[in-house]
Amino acid sequence: MLKYPEPISRLNGEFKKMPGIGPKSAQRLSLYVIGLNNIEAEALTNAIIDVKKNIKRCSICNNLTVFDPCDICGDNSRDKSILCVVSDPKDLLAIEKTGFKGLYHVIGGVISPLDGIRAEDLKIHDLLKRLSGNSVKEIIVATNPTVEGETTALYLTKLIKPLGVKITRIASGLPVGSDMDFADEITISKSFEGRREIE
Amino acid sequence: MLKYPEPISRLNGEFKKMPGIGPKSAQRLSLYVIGLNNIEAEALTNAIIDVKKNIKRCSICNNLTVFDPCDICGDNSRDKSILCVVSDPKDLLAIEKTGFKGLYHVIGGVISPLDGIRAEDLKIHDLLKRLSGNSVKEIIVATNPTVEGETTALYLTKLIKPLGVKITRIASGLPVGSDMDFADEITISKSFEGRREIE
Repeated sequence: MLKYPEPISRLNGEFKKMPGIGPKSAQRLSLYVIGLNNIEAEALTNAIIDVKKNIKRCSICNNLTVFDPCDICGDNSRDKSILCVVSDPKDLLAIEKTGFKGLYHVIGGVISPLDGIRAEDLKIHDLLKRLSGNSVKEIIVATNPTVEGETTALYLTKLIKPLGVKITRIASGLPVGSDMDFADEITISKSFEGRREIE
Repeated sequence: MLKYPEPISRLNGEFKKMPGIGPKSAQRLSLYVIGLNNIEAEALTNAIIDVKKNIKRCSICNNLTVFDPCDICGDNSRDKSILCVVSDPKDLLAIEKTGFKGLYHVIGGVISPLDGIRAEDLKIHDLLKRLSGNSVKEIIVATNPTVEGETTALYLTKLIKPLGVKITRIASGLPVGSDMDFADEITISKSFEGRREIE
């Protein structure tokens, strides 16, 4: 026996498909599942089933939600003139924690030819449709400050600028509380480029 | 909304209980599950359910198995006079890859007062019962060379030696292909203690 019994190898295989889970972690997770009692195992499978059954995409902003439209799009107290473009729901959540009160649009990734993600694969068409109503005054592009994130921001700028909507990019620079000494040259350059007059 | 919808936070919570999975990984795994199509999600939940339904402990060696007794205990070509004691099924699998042809006993952990694991929590009683038949001539203790693993090996020695069964411990030393320069002092000391005459 050079392998685990079939049910265990199959579960290993399922875990190995997950992002960031290698063979050793998959094995550890399988042994964890085996060690669960029936109630705990059911809680796990039910959580997976419920997520698949109840979570959908908001038809307006493409965020993950139980109800359509989502809580944010359905909230009339929010500022409908500012639209923040993010690549993923987890980025939306990170921005939401800052108290941002505008609306969002989740494009579902960034343009990345190496990973085979083209502009057509993103929810950019839906974004343009939202701009036709004239209520949006500013688009903040909050994709990650990576090559792919910048490419996506540039692509969006080319599409949106001709429509007469203001389009802005979040600032890159030194993280608050960080040490200049440990920052890379590109980040320092960015923080110089984006310098502001002290008032 | 400072949180994900309930089904997602619940799945996050289930993933966070898994060993080595922190909040960020749990979030990544949940988003992975959301991205699965129904067939893929079903394959995942079925794998979990099947493992819980079909995997049991071998009544002889306590290894994970579909059939009882397990393939190893039921294999008459194996040497029944040598019993290798391991803490976990994954260690058994690692040893099995070396071509070891004796039998195993999985005690299900190591003595670790800090983690609340006492000798009574391990399958040591079952191990002693297996020795009563007089067929076992040697016990190889293959717990990890950690403080807990050594403690467990000492504990087993005290119990088993009086029964007149030979008890041995796997060697500690420099891993094959490693560099003396990078080895810690304790490992080097162990490799000196365990030195053998070159023949």
